[in-house]
Amino acid sequence: MTPKRLLIVGGVAGGASAAARARRLNEACDIVVFDKGPHVSFANCGLPYFVGDVIQDESKLLVASPELFRDRFRIDVRTRHEVTAIDTDERTIQVRDLTADSLHTEAYDALVLSPGARAIRPPVLGIDLPGVFVVRTIPDSRRIRAWLADHQASRAVVVGGGFIGLEMAENLSHRNLAISIVESAPHVLPPLDPEMARPVEDHLRSQGVNLLLGDAIAKIEQGEDHSLVVRTRAGVELATDLVILATGVRPETTLAKASGIALGRRGGIRVDEHMRTSVPGVWAVGDAVEIREVMTGVEAILPLAGPANRQGRIAANDIFGHASRFRGVQGTAVCGVFGMTVASTGVSERALAREGISDYERIYLHPGHHVGYFPGAKPIRIKLLFRPSDGRVLGAQAVGEEGVARRIDVISMTIQQGGTVYDLEEAELCYAPQFGAAKDPVNLAGMIAANVLRGHLQLARWEELPDADVLVVDVRSAEEHAGGAIPGAINIPLEELRGRLAELPRDRELWLYCQVGQRAYYATRLLLQRGFRVRNLPGGIQTYASFTSPAE
Amino acid sequence: MTPKRLLIVGGVAGGASAAARARRLNEACDIVVFDKGPHVSFANCGLPYFVGDVIQDESKLLVASPELFRDRFRIDVRTRHEVTAIDTDERTIQVRDLTADSLHTEAYDALVLSPGARAIRPPVLGIDLPGVFVVRTIPDSRRIRAWLADHQASRAVVVGGGFIGLEMAENLSHRNLAISIVESAPHVLPPLDPEMARPVEDHLRSQGVNLLLGDAIAKIEQGEDHSLVVRTRAGVELATDLVILATGVRPETTLAKASGIALGRRGGIRVDEHMRTSVPGVWAVGDAVEIREVMTGVEAILPLAGPANRQGRIAANDIFGHASRFRGVQGTAVCGVFGMTVASTGVSERALAREGISDYERIYLHPGHHVGYFPGAKPIRIKLLFRPSDGRVLGAQAVGEEGVARRIDVISMTIQQGGTVYDLEEAELCYAPQFGAAKDPVNLAGMIAANVLRGHLQLARWEELPDADVLVVDVRSAEEHAGGAIPGAINIPLEELRGRLAELPRDRELWLYCQVGQRAYYATRLLLQRGFRVRNLPGGIQTYASFTSPAE
Repeated sequence: MTPKRLLIVGGVAGGASAAARARRLNEACDIVVFDKGPHVSFANCGLPYFVGDVIQDESKLLVASPELFRDRFRIDVRTRHEVTAIDTDERTIQVRDLTADSLHTEAYDALVLSPGARAIRPPVLGIDLPGVFVVRTIPDSRRIRAWLADHQASRAVVVGGGFIGLEMAENLSHRNLAISIVESAPHVLPPLDPEMARPVEDHLRSQGVNLLLGDAIAKIEQGEDHSLVVRTRAGVELATDLVILATGVRPETTLAKASGIALGRRGGIRVDEHMRTSVPGVWAVGDAVEIREVMTGVEAILPLAGPANRQGRIAANDIFGHASRFRGVQGTAVCGVFGMTVASTGVSERALAREGISDYERIYLHPGHHVGYFPGAKPIRIKLLFRPSDGRVLGAQAVGEEGVARRIDVISMTIQQGGTVYDLEEAELCYAPQFGAAKDPVNLAGMIAANVLRGHLQLARWEELPDADVLVVDVRSAEEHAGGAIPGAINIPLEELRGRLAELPRDRELWLYCQVGQRAYYATRLLLQRGFRVRNLPGGIQTYASFTSPAE
Repeated sequence: MTPKRLLIVGGVAGGASAAARARRLNEACDIVVFDKGPHVSFANCGLPYFVGDVIQDESKLLVASPELFRDRFRIDVRTRHEVTAIDTDERTIQVRDLTADSLHTEAYDALVLSPGARAIRPPVLGIDLPGVFVVRTIPDSRRIRAWLADHQASRAVVVGGGFIGLEMAENLSHRNLAISIVESAPHVLPPLDPEMARPVEDHLRSQGVNLLLGDAIAKIEQGEDHSLVVRTRAGVELATDLVILATGVRPETTLAKASGIALGRRGGIRVDEHMRTSVPGVWAVGDAVEIREVMTGVEAILPLAGPANRQGRIAANDIFGHASRFRGVQGTAVCGVFGMTVASTGVSERALAREGISDYERIYLHPGHHVGYFPGAKPIRIKLLFRPSDGRVLGAQAVGEEGVARRIDVISMTIQQGGTVYDLEEAELCYAPQFGAAKDPVNLAGMIAANVLRGHLQLARWEELPDADVLVVDVRSAEEHAGGAIPGAINIPLEELRGRLAELPRDRELWLYCQVGQRAYYATRLLLQRGFRVRNLPGGIQTYASFTSPAE
């Protein structure tokens, strides 16, 4: 039975996609979109850049207006209309017109919930003071812009060091504010593992950002002249002109819950692969739903625009009888941080640990984003996680200035298709001197991982280094060794190794390293064939630095 | 039986990779690399940029020296040593020391041929005149640099409009020379289809390049003061200070052929997936070999560094008993052309036609490299080829300023894994405003193609437009239509379409278009559901321009 009347709650990414797709599939159906806010289909990912004045024209953020929906799609968009209740038996919803302050009942054949998520506001004193902001809507960012202008703000405290927090830090810094970031986790960017977040933290500090990790705000107090004072649990006092709350979001599930629609284990609306909720006739999409992470099969909440858009299409497909299914999420994400790019896909090591998965191995590498002989090569720091039992790629994280998203996208595509490190090894990728390398960073990651799987090298774990009863050997040049080395390491340059084998013990494991791992790999092959017991410290001293205490 | 003595003929990409890999796999083996040139392991892909002074230091082009091979790998590299004969029964080679002008015999257990390719020199009068150059080696480019300096060159003729030809044109233009390109094919960049090469040609002309397509050089004559005059078959006369020959390369097979090693259908050395030649004990890799194109299964010659490097590793693996296989090539390639990036992967439409394959469909799209609301979005022109019978991605070509290699790399990875347009549709790629879009260009390509496969839209072929008995409908705004439209098209803006259905015939096919295809798709869905017969002109008027005569 093709629905004659489709109602959609929430008109941003997922809801707007569902509405437009529905119209393309069915000209006859009535389609009405309700949004309690003043806008639909706005670019919420652009808000930090609007605050930062990188995007100067507010109207650019409006991807599609109600008029466009009406004229182009014959879709009835009603902004400032809040859906307050669902009667899933009668298939009706109750809608409050916030402008007229009136209540109506609307009947549906199919209902799509796309209510989004709301910002988490830490429950501390002063959290509602003027000058404390979240960044979820255009009016939110308009208020921040006005505050910056009205109060000649020169200092900001950003609470939360995730993607939005760092984007806000960058953008406020772009407007010449001095920035403090307070992050309760021991490192920024929770999707990353700590050692991969480390270079981002170093970079933030080098840009003058005051980073308070493993700390949280305890209280916000009114200072003089509209200024604020943020006090942290660790007792730090930060005088500031404004506070940005970016501690994450929570699925907006009030309506769904009140209507008897089942929530999942993580607190989002539970849906199947067709985006159907537990209640017939009701679909849900976007930030409010709980989806499956493809690698672990675990339920996840991933408030990102890409999946939301695809979910909207898939819900509409299902409503009108077209086959498609949502494949789950990999958590592919990217973030610009003061000229640095951070991206990841698949699972992190921490996520593996959380799920009790130990069948994984990890490598680190630091290739240039293009060949070194062409001017301007920038290193990319890559961590690759893979499964020794079958070679499957599990996840990757990358940090660098150039070409980061490209490599993560290629690995994301590999993961989506169930690919292995051998697929990375043999990938045929774009190469010209200014665009990459004959052995692209993706190939190198695959080659190193495949070498591990083939037993050509064994990896040591950096975490075990301090307590390991091993001899650490630095195979770099004497000059490089003198410039800074792992404490206790002896130095035998690769080029001298064959002639100095007598200096190495045969009854003790050797842990080799160099600058990034390549020479240590050569040395490993050499020594293994001569009967030594050898492991490789992956990623060399470049990675070592990320496992030691931060240089404050 | 593990070989005790491995000889390698040719020490650039493939040979150098084989040598280094061999040493990592086996410490005991003698490894000797012979190269008739003065260098091994040099960056031939960098030569145009060395000529253009983008790479200023010649030593940067030397990726690895004979000393490094000796000290690091205990590999004996002999430059200026030409291998002149192979006795495959005795397993010996004859080597001429070009410095001492002496001849030796060397025995091998395993032999790897990596002789590369040599530049094709068109057989015309004057081709050997001073000032006529090829660009294959460091001495070649050193000679060009010297010539430019000594003769204050201000004009160059580049013969051949392939990748190297265009890179040379860009680099010589960078040195302020006026450039003419003579290309015998009707369009530049043979791996592309003509309509995708068109925007590159427009761009070259906009940069002041004099483009002679479908023409060839007939003769080169000596002019005054070291200058030259190039005469083309079409009768054009080009006065110039130098001529660059970039008409492609031919596999260097003299030695193999003389030694009874089988060549393939395309004239390269025939190898299996382990890089074994027809003769036991002899492997071959790199530009000299013939490999399988993965999609068509057809033999191909693809002189690219990436495959050469991987083949070198695979040959060494096989020699020392480690399993691996070369998967064939997809033809992934990229080229920078005066600030534009051109990239492709998989098969072109012309390659499909050549093999008589008609089970394919094609789409065009013109998305921004990131969202439009973030400043600086640059369009990417994409052509995607796919197989309707199973949705497999066959090939893609892309032209633009930013983000081109990234999208082709993702599609390359999809092709390698046998992926479909549905995989592109559901790909989870990096998105933040400055890095992409919630619906990435790759997603959009997949969505459009999947819409075709699902029967949601039918495509018209641009080539059939001139003779088609159809009504062409421009669904853009009246202003856009007035600014330039397809001759004979009527204009009904998408927004007015539902109210003006009476103006459209039901007995005649409608071919719809807009600027890039999106609005025409919406209109197609609308009209199909109202019972009209509709096709879509893929890629809109942006693509149309590429199918019409070039604006000279």
